[in-house]
Amino acid sequence: MGFIIRKGKFPDISQVLNLIKELAAFEKEPDAVMVTENDLIRDGFGKKPLFKFYVAELEGVVVGMALFYPRYSTWKGKTIHLEDLIVKQNKRGLGIGKALYKQVMRYAYKKKAKRVEWVVLDWNKTALDFYKSTGATILTDWHLAQMDEKALNIFINKN
Amino acid sequence: MGFIIRKGKFPDISQVLNLIKELAAFEKEPDAVMVTENDLIRDGFGKKPLFKFYVAELEGVVVGMALFYPRYSTWKGKTIHLEDLIVKQNKRGLGIGKALYKQVMRYAYKKKAKRVEWVVLDWNKTALDFYKSTGATILTDWHLAQMDEKALNIFINKN
Repeated sequence: MGFIIRKGKFPDISQVLNLIKELAAFEKEPDAVMVTENDLIRDGFGKKPLFKFYVAELEGVVVGMALFYPRYSTWKGKTIHLEDLIVKQNKRGLGIGKALYKQVMRYAYKKKAKRVEWVVLDWNKTALDFYKSTGATILTDWHLAQMDEKALNIFINKN
Repeated sequence: MGFIIRKGKFPDISQVLNLIKELAAFEKEPDAVMVTENDLIRDGFGKKPLFKFYVAELEGVVVGMALFYPRYSTWKGKTIHLEDLIVKQNKRGLGIGKALYKQVMRYAYKKKAKRVEWVVLDWNKTALDFYKSTGATILTDWHLAQMDEKALNIFINKN
């Protein structure tokens, strides 16, 4: 299909941030992205990188990316969390998403991860159908809980 | 109430594993715990620890624990994931859970985490009410997706 999948590098960050913003808009939270290029560079390429990522490159342009990091299950052991799997809107349907997904699964397999996990919006039928077709399980009886920075500040100052 | 909260140490692992098994039974998956004491020691106290934990100690016995590790949000930056918050069944109602929770929130605040996140079963009303009372947000429109070890093996060998 003309695209290649490779490890994400330092100079990809600016294009990766554009993809992150595109996904936020798709998920109906266009203003939610607070991270900057500098944040991503510091956090992804510092002494203790907080994530790794693969990119899909087509004609010299980054058109997709998969970002992931280790997690831990007290039931299973070492796991991998797939935080983002993004393909540029006008480059969908070319198999790029599946190729990125496969690359992350290969990484997890090589690292002997006990599980790969991620979250998906309940209305994103295309994504849900794709994940199920690969053998993934969708769990619908768990809710996500989040204490954001503002709530954390309030809680700490009260307690 | 006579209990203390402190950092988890190596000799606590055996009691911590018992708490993990107790929680699995409460969550109706008594056989889901595959990790051993040795796994927890290797993964929590190796060169690159995959998690940290606090314990609650009452009369020399570990009666609760909170286990957490870093994650990364491509929208917000560095976050903390609270994997487990467990209080021994017969020691509930003494404020131990809240004290452990507070300790994790303090850690996150000190580390300038942009968010603390965790998951909760939709039928666990006591937990849901508690989390909400502390200012946490419960997101109900996300599903968890998981590729377990067996599914991962099948997928890799097919693709």
